[in-house]
Formats: sequence, C-alpha cells, structure tokens
Amino acid sequence: MIAVLRLGHRLSRDRRVSTHLALVARAFGASRMVLTCRDERLQSSIAGVCRAWGGSFSIEVEENWRGYLRRWNGVKVHLTMYGEHIDDRIEEIRSAGGDVLVVVGAEKVPAEVFELVDYNIAIGHQPHSEVAALAVFLDRYFEGRELHRDFGGRLRVVPMRRGKRVEER
Amino acid sequence: MIAVLRLGHRLSRDRRVSTHLALVARAFGASRMVLTCRDERLQSSIAGVCRAWGGSFSIEVEENWRGYLRRWNGVKVHLTMYGEHIDDRIEEIRSAGGDVLVVVGAEKVPAEVFELVDYNIAIGHQPHSEVAALAVFLDRYFEGRELHRDFGGRLRVVPMRRGKRVEER
Repeated sequence: MIAVLRLGHRLSRDRRVSTHLALVARAFGASRMVLTCRDERLQSSIAGVCRAWGGSFSIEVEENWRGYLRRWNGVKVHLTMYGEHIDDRIEEIRSAGGDVLVVVGAEKVPAEVFELVDYNIAIGHQPHSEVAALAVFLDRYFEGRELHRDFGGRLRVVPMRRGKRVEER
Repeated sequence: MIAVLRLGHRLSRDRRVSTHLALVARAFGASRMVLTCRDERLQSSIAGVCRAWGGSFSIEVEENWRGYLRRWNGVKVHLTMYGEHIDDRIEEIRSAGGDVLVVVGAEKVPAEVFELVDYNIAIGHQPHSEVAALAVFLDRYFEGRELHRDFGGRLRVVPMRRGKRVEER
C-alpha cells in the first residue's frame, strides 16, 4: 500500500496543485492521500472522481503530520530536488517491501522532514513540480504497471486514435 | 528538439499549473514552451529559473496556435486521457526522429486538436494532471536520461541523504 502525505496545503492558493497531486496519487497506484487540513472542495471533487472512475482511493486529514510520519509502519520517502537521485535508490526502496509513505511538500518544507524519513529522493536535481515528481516516482516504483490497472469504475475510456469515447458500465 | 504547446492558458487561474508545466518541460529535456497568450509573470519567473539553473529553455508566445500546429515540421503528439496508451506508441514516436511538438491542453481542448496531430497519447486512461502527463511522456521518451543532464547553471544541487546543499559556480 502506498500513501501520499501532502505537507503545506493552504486552501485556495494550493487547491489546484493539491487536486492534481490527489488525482496523480490515485491514477498512479496510491491508495490514499493525507492532507494536514480539511478542504471540503478538494475532498468532494476527488470523491466525485472515485465514484465515476472507480478504485478505492481516499483522502484523509491528519493535522499532526509529525505524529503521522513517526507512527508510519513502513518506508518513508520524501521527494525533494535536494535528495539522492531516484535511479540510485529506487530498487532498494522497491525491494524493501511493505507500505510506502511518499511525502510531498509545498515550497517550504520544515528541515525536520529530511530527518524523519528514510529516504530523501530527487526526481532529477532541477527545480520542477511536486506533481511531476510524484508521478515519475510512482511510475518508476511500479515499473509502469500502474498505467494498465483496471479501476472497475462506472466510466471507462475506450482508447482512440482520434476523438473521445467513454463507455458507461 | 522537443517543444511543448500549452493550449488554453488563462492568466491568473492557470498560472501555477502553467508554471509547473514550463518547469517540467525544461527539467525533462524540452527546449521551449509555447503559450497562446503573453503572461509576463510566468515568463519572468521561468527566465529567472533559467538564469540560476542553466540550460537554454525559452518561452514563446504564439496566438495562432492552429497555424503553429499546422506549420510544425516534425511529429505532433497531443497528450489526452482519451488517446492510445503510451506503451503502444512510444517506440514508434521515438524512432520517428526529428523534432517533436507535445500539445498539452487545459480542461476543454477543441475537437480539431485531435485531428491536427499525428498521435493522441494517453498516460493511462484515468483522469489526472497535464503536468504529470508531460513529465511521464518525456521521461519515457528520453528513457530516463533527461534526469541526468548537466544544465551547466550557476547553481547546482549537491545530492544529499539528509538536508540541502547547493553549490554556486
């Protein structure tokens, strides 16, 4: 099981990026995203996606993120451009087995996060996007298999060379 | 050479997502992002990143995106959850050689875009994020090599197990 802990979400300012993060977490095989503050609009928009498109992804709220991190029973990976290159650690992380908590910050991440995790991992060492970092981390972790998963939802895309087709089950 | 054409950018509402897209385009090996309207704040923030971190990435503005698409001399790939699975086409796209234009839309993409490109490609068929789609497409296209590129910038991250270290050259 993979969970994503989103640090530093500030309601309206971060809602779109946090929504992208939640959708990526779900689509790329995580089971849960943990926010540090309640955000009804974000939570209801993700719940709507799950009702339509399937899967059992959930959003949880945990204000005490330090406690959540400390109690996590499994591997803890913080995504940061300052960390070790993903290519140097992904096999080790994958082969550790068990549950994985992926920590994704906003612009300013408290220094103690770097200490509370098992791995600080960089998806390259250039500045880019936590959304991209999460997607590429999960894509590498699952070796691309996550993009073939059947979510069993009410709606399903029928892949097309041109145009859009969605089937309703 | 890879360029990214961003459709449907609407200033303040989309600035953060378009900024993520531009940073991802640059960090994952594209040379240029084309916007359909001028956005001084976005353009100056990306120029600042390039001055500090290196590379020759540029932002261009082209209001006539249809003309730009039609005139493009190379492969045109539109990223959309309705398209063909990336795994079924990435080798074909990579081996076509030449320049690649990656088209990334916002929520509503005009139907004609699906017709004007060579490929409509899905990074999985679940709803997620254009930022994630662009990152995973480029990561697959370059087979991960882009994350090892030396941008030759004034600033350079020194990878660390814990903490942050940035060298100034």
